[in-house]
Amino acid sequence: MTPPEPLAPAAPAAPDPLRIDPDLVEGILSRFLVEEVTKVGFQRVVIGLSGGVDSALACWLAARALGPGQVLAVCLPYRASDPRSLEDARQVVAVTGVSSRTLDISPQIDAYFAAVPTDDRRRRGNKLARERMTVLYDLSLAESALVLGTSNKTELLLGYGTVFGDLASALNPLGDLYKTQVFQLAAHARLPPAVLAKAPSADLFRGQSDEADLGFSYACADRLLYHLVDERRTVAECLELGFAADLVASVRQRIRHNQFKRRLPLIAKLSARTIDCDFRYPRDWGR
Amino acid sequence: MTPPEPLAPAAPAAPDPLRIDPDLVEGILSRFLVEEVTKVGFQRVVIGLSGGVDSALACWLAARALGPGQVLAVCLPYRASDPRSLEDARQVVAVTGVSSRTLDISPQIDAYFAAVPTDDRRRRGNKLARERMTVLYDLSLAESALVLGTSNKTELLLGYGTVFGDLASALNPLGDLYKTQVFQLAAHARLPPAVLAKAPSADLFRGQSDEADLGFSYACADRLLYHLVDERRTVAECLELGFAADLVASVRQRIRHNQFKRRLPLIAKLSARTIDCDFRYPRDWGR
Repeated sequence: MTPPEPLAPAAPAAPDPLRIDPDLVEGILSRFLVEEVTKVGFQRVVIGLSGGVDSALACWLAARALGPGQVLAVCLPYRASDPRSLEDARQVVAVTGVSSRTLDISPQIDAYFAAVPTDDRRRRGNKLARERMTVLYDLSLAESALVLGTSNKTELLLGYGTVFGDLASALNPLGDLYKTQVFQLAAHARLPPAVLAKAPSADLFRGQSDEADLGFSYACADRLLYHLVDERRTVAECLELGFAADLVASVRQRIRHNQFKRRLPLIAKLSARTIDCDFRYPRDWGR
Repeated sequence: MTPPEPLAPAAPAAPDPLRIDPDLVEGILSRFLVEEVTKVGFQRVVIGLSGGVDSALACWLAARALGPGQVLAVCLPYRASDPRSLEDARQVVAVTGVSSRTLDISPQIDAYFAAVPTDDRRRRGNKLARERMTVLYDLSLAESALVLGTSNKTELLLGYGTVFGDLASALNPLGDLYKTQVFQLAAHARLPPAVLAKAPSADLFRGQSDEADLGFSYACADRLLYHLVDERRTVAECLELGFAADLVASVRQRIRHNQFKRRLPLIAKLSARTIDCDFRYPRDWGR
């Protein structure tokens, strides 16, 4: 008896376009970090270590590129954070040999929400993410160290991050790597098994899971994002490739809806040369 | 007796290029606000009111464009802020008829600096500016209101502001108006005399003055910025126009040195389509 015809064709059997060459990528990102940090007159970076794979990988890359003594890793737990996150972050500090600092952000967060009470998880989560940014930027000035971003391409495209919070940084070595590519490079880096094994979570409340929040897996999303964004395929083409219609609709809507998080504030144009319109030199123009 | 020849020629006597037509500018900015707020599905804006002329003007423009009921003005004093700032902000609320809310940010600021003590005014000032941003963005989500920016072109070009703090917003109606042009429009708006008359100050510490911080007056800086930026004149041409060499050097260095505040985080390029490089749709692309 022959098996029934599948209702939709399986995913293409071609070589996985998301597969990276970890040595090559490590080299490119190392040179990026050395060049972009030193050419603006800095030697050091500061990075928020969450216990997750993205910040662990960014920390490892920075330690390899700049030397562990030039990296300040900052752990910023809130009282509702999973205590294992801090343990995992400390393992990353131990294996990379970077300097570190831990600062509980509960007092200032609780002070704010005492005045403006809310149980809204999005609001509470955004406030945590932004408070962490303000601490990293304060230490950036105190320590003459550039803030390293840790948002990956999947999060940036899906808008799964807090604008002016975890999305804020000076330099981001991971912003052009999909989440599944971050995992490939993290495995190559031999990051602590606990960091590699756990389910991705923003850890903004107990038991949070990125994939549950998003409603789809990173493995699925990354393949689809590759076809939609990098290959510029149409929705019809993605459906033909075998992606489910509701996944395509959801991902496409997320990309478009969150475009504002990937652009600067919009300035009303009045003159011949308007910032971010006719006045757009590179970031390091002045150095 | 004839007076001695001046050492440098006086400023050019041509019609002042920084003179604006207040009715025309008001109309352009009103339409900008209505269009950009409503086309992304919003009706309301939230704005931090400092008691200074920029936020007062932005508040007035928003109230005229959207209706005072659609504008939430938020006063965010710190215990070291000048109490007159809050009084002036309340006058702006009264004359514009917008909704308002006052929230003392001292508890969370003091909680942070209790753990990380510093007397560094820049660090303390930046933390205040960023805390205010986090509050405005929290209320933005709570109230479905876009955060209105209030940085003027002079501040943006000179980098006189806190990145991811007061420089963060969704829409900025004032970003293409020099400070002296903000004053012209504010006079046309008949903002409270106390707001129009006082010396510009970031009010991050007692007795702060923008012009003392910067080392030159807005009147001078704006004329020079116009020639350097809008007219694309060289340093030699600016000297020939009569601007002092140290002013030109200082302003030029500030513009270049602060370019990073006017650009997005830099992402290491690895793929065919990198955010802010090959993937750059407009902010409202998805709407």
